Amino acid sequence: MPKLNENYLKLKQNYLFADIRHRIDSYCEKNPELGKKLIRLGIGDVTLPLGEPIINGLHEGVDAMAKAETFRGYGPEQGYDETRQAVVDYYKRNGVDVDFEAVFISDGAKSDTGNITDIFGNGNVILCPDPVYPVYVDTNTMCGRDVIYMAGNAENGFLPMPDKNVHADIIYLCSPNNPTGACYNKEQLKEWVDYAIANEAVILFDSAYEAFIVDPELPRSIYAVEGARKCAIEFCSLSKTAGFTGTRCGYTVVPTELKFKASDGTEMSLNQMWIRRQSTKFNGTSYIVQKGAEVVFSEEGIKACNENLDYYKRNAKLIADTMTELGIPFTGGINSPYIWFECPKGMESWECFDYMLNEIQVVGTPGAGFGENGKNYFRLTSFGSYESTVEAMERFKKLFA
Amino acid sequence: MPKLNENYLKLKQNYLFADIRHRIDSYCEKNPELGKKLIRLGIGDVTLPLGEPIINGLHEGVDAMAKAETFRGYGPEQGYDETRQAVVDYYKRNGVDVDFEAVFISDGAKSDTGNITDIFGNGNVILCPDPVYPVYVDTNTMCGRDVIYMAGNAENGFLPMPDKNVHADIIYLCSPNNPTGACYNKEQLKEWVDYAIANEAVILFDSAYEAFIVDPELPRSIYAVEGARKCAIEFCSLSKTAGFTGTRCGYTVVPTELKFKASDGTEMSLNQMWIRRQSTKFNGTSYIVQKGAEVVFSEEGIKACNENLDYYKRNAKLIADTMTELGIPFTGGINSPYIWFECPKGMESWECFDYMLNEIQVVGTPGAGFGENGKNYFRLTSFGSYESTVEAMERFKKLFA
Repeated sequence: MPKLNENYLKLKQNYLFADIRHRIDSYCEKNPELGKKLIRLGIGDVTLPLGEPIINGLHEGVDAMAKAETFRGYGPEQGYDETRQAVVDYYKRNGVDVDFEAVFISDGAKSDTGNITDIFGNGNVILCPDPVYPVYVDTNTMCGRDVIYMAGNAENGFLPMPDKNVHADIIYLCSPNNPTGACYNKEQLKEWVDYAIANEAVILFDSAYEAFIVDPELPRSIYAVEGARKCAIEFCSLSKTAGFTGTRCGYTVVPTELKFKASDGTEMSLNQMWIRRQSTKFNGTSYIVQKGAEVVFSEEGIKACNENLDYYKRNAKLIADTMTELGIPFTGGINSPYIWFECPKGMESWECFDYMLNEIQVVGTPGAGFGENGKNYFRLTSFGSYESTVEAMERFKKLFA
Repeated sequence: MPKLNENYLKLKQNYLFADIRHRIDSYCEKNPELGKKLIRLGIGDVTLPLGEPIINGLHEGVDAMAKAETFRGYGPEQGYDETRQAVVDYYKRNGVDVDFEAVFISDGAKSDTGNITDIFGNGNVILCPDPVYPVYVDTNTMCGRDVIYMAGNAENGFLPMPDKNVHADIIYLCSPNNPTGACYNKEQLKEWVDYAIANEAVILFDSAYEAFIVDPELPRSIYAVEGARKCAIEFCSLSKTAGFTGTRCGYTVVPTELKFKASDGTEMSLNQMWIRRQSTKFNGTSYIVQKGAEVVFSEEGIKACNENLDYYKRNAKLIADTMTELGIPFTGGINSPYIWFECPKGMESWECFDYMLNEIQVVGTPGAGFGENGKNYFRLTSFGSYESTVEAMERFKKLFA
């Protein structure tokens, strides 16, 4: 009989979104008229269509497949040179240098943040923020690895900083953060980089929301910080930058500087290990999608993406301004598509969910779904339509005035 | 300092294709005129463009992304219902029943055959054929698992059969086989299924080349064999079926019947574990690609694919006929895009490689690259143009007449 991976038994079933759906369905059934007024601001997915130049790039990719002269079979597992170079240029435009051979194109940051566990061994001290994107924790649980948590809370503005008394080998950071929308500044990231170098640790940096940063002083990449190439892997995605949640493309930067000694003294390069992992268990990202991605990072592509991003940013600001007006403590809303606020009236997050559903038919995500430190917080997102966001905030103001 | 996955140090560097490239480059440098005559029949990649209805399906997928009403964000990790149903219907048309909830759409069979190791534990006896597609072995080595080999050779027609004296927990089978082109018949697969059930083992069945089967008596799926749903996971791909090596789409069937007991007696479903794996470490296949895949399995899609397949099959037959004419023992050529022949004159495979390169400027793949049992064999493929295949066989006949 096959021995199965019994670590899967330790996984918490994440019923968060199923539970939310269930409560909404049951509400709408009991209140068919009020149910029609429902506004969903819980969704973490983009809603606007892709810009024209990107659509054209994708069509070109399809057309290439129609003719023998331009047809593409197996591509390089690391991604086509043009796509990798487009990512390098995108970084450069944002003032950051990454090496061409450090860049890997993939089908998305979720795959890469999950699969990266493959190149690490057991016995590492793994540090995760709480609240946290569940994938970091679940993928470690799946390979039998425990994580230790660092609290994000009102005191540190949901930006936990290194504790010199705690040693870590692997550190997950996400900035701008999902779910809290909080964003590290350069000095804070520098502290993390210094800590990682002192501990000979690796930072796994998720920058999936970097395109939402508007403050030019805030780092859009950990490589904006000196020394980061010696200690950090960065994951990013076109999901939020370019609305690619359904088109699927991401990229991961594994600097060639990242080398560590194996127990027998052999030097191992994380970049080489990731090449080996990807060339053995992955066969490259669709050529069609890579053609679209290439356009995303061109001047006209960025312009098209910014139009969509500006739409979402306006929604985010509207929600943030409402919180400010009502005096409700929150993080995010600027430099992030997420607004993470303290549940009013001392409510717990599920209580707040039900209250908002019943009283104003506005749906968000209870913070408890992201960890212990989220239990009195609530997440709203800026991915709805402008009109529904305006209406939701009007109702919200009346409820919590 | 992070502990790395030191199993990577145990991986053999696979220099096969790099080595081939190096020998070709060096030959062409020394013999610039003869180098121009080079014909490559080593390539395992399709070369013909996608058929028109499939191109149209992909364009439709792109167009959907251009309008708010049809835009698709995150899709189901298991694949869209329509694509999954198209796979179910494709199986049905080939006389095989698979359940809708057993079908998972992915970015390719290489990802799935690699990632499937995630749901198994350590301590299994893993059986692999030799010669073998290196991914089965490397992905197990990467998680610190040893495999035992069963020999494919002239005696068993490169179709190793179960040995009742050997217990296995996990068995890799590939039919039609890469690299040997050999194809199990129903009785042989039944023996494997019976063996697996008796051993409570799981068969990991790679049917990536099923579309090349022309003999209606040969099983295109392991589920054509009774009992297989109780013991087998099947991996398939649109790479060879539809020329999707660069477009990227595959599918994996994990029957809900596959349940085994954990060490504490808890029953674990492989189907549920794979859902958990995919929904945690994967975010679904590109919607655009899935729209193309849906068309592949439609009547007009299959017709378009068959035109390309017929082209390759004609090449394969031409090579097989040449071997027959020359009295060279071989497998494949029919029901497979590969022709696996015994190196003439008692040559070893690299010797044969150099001999053919020097004498007739025809390039293939030395069997040694696929395992110990390949060291006197050689693989040619049918993915070249018809004209170059004819010319290569003319030269081959002169050389080995």
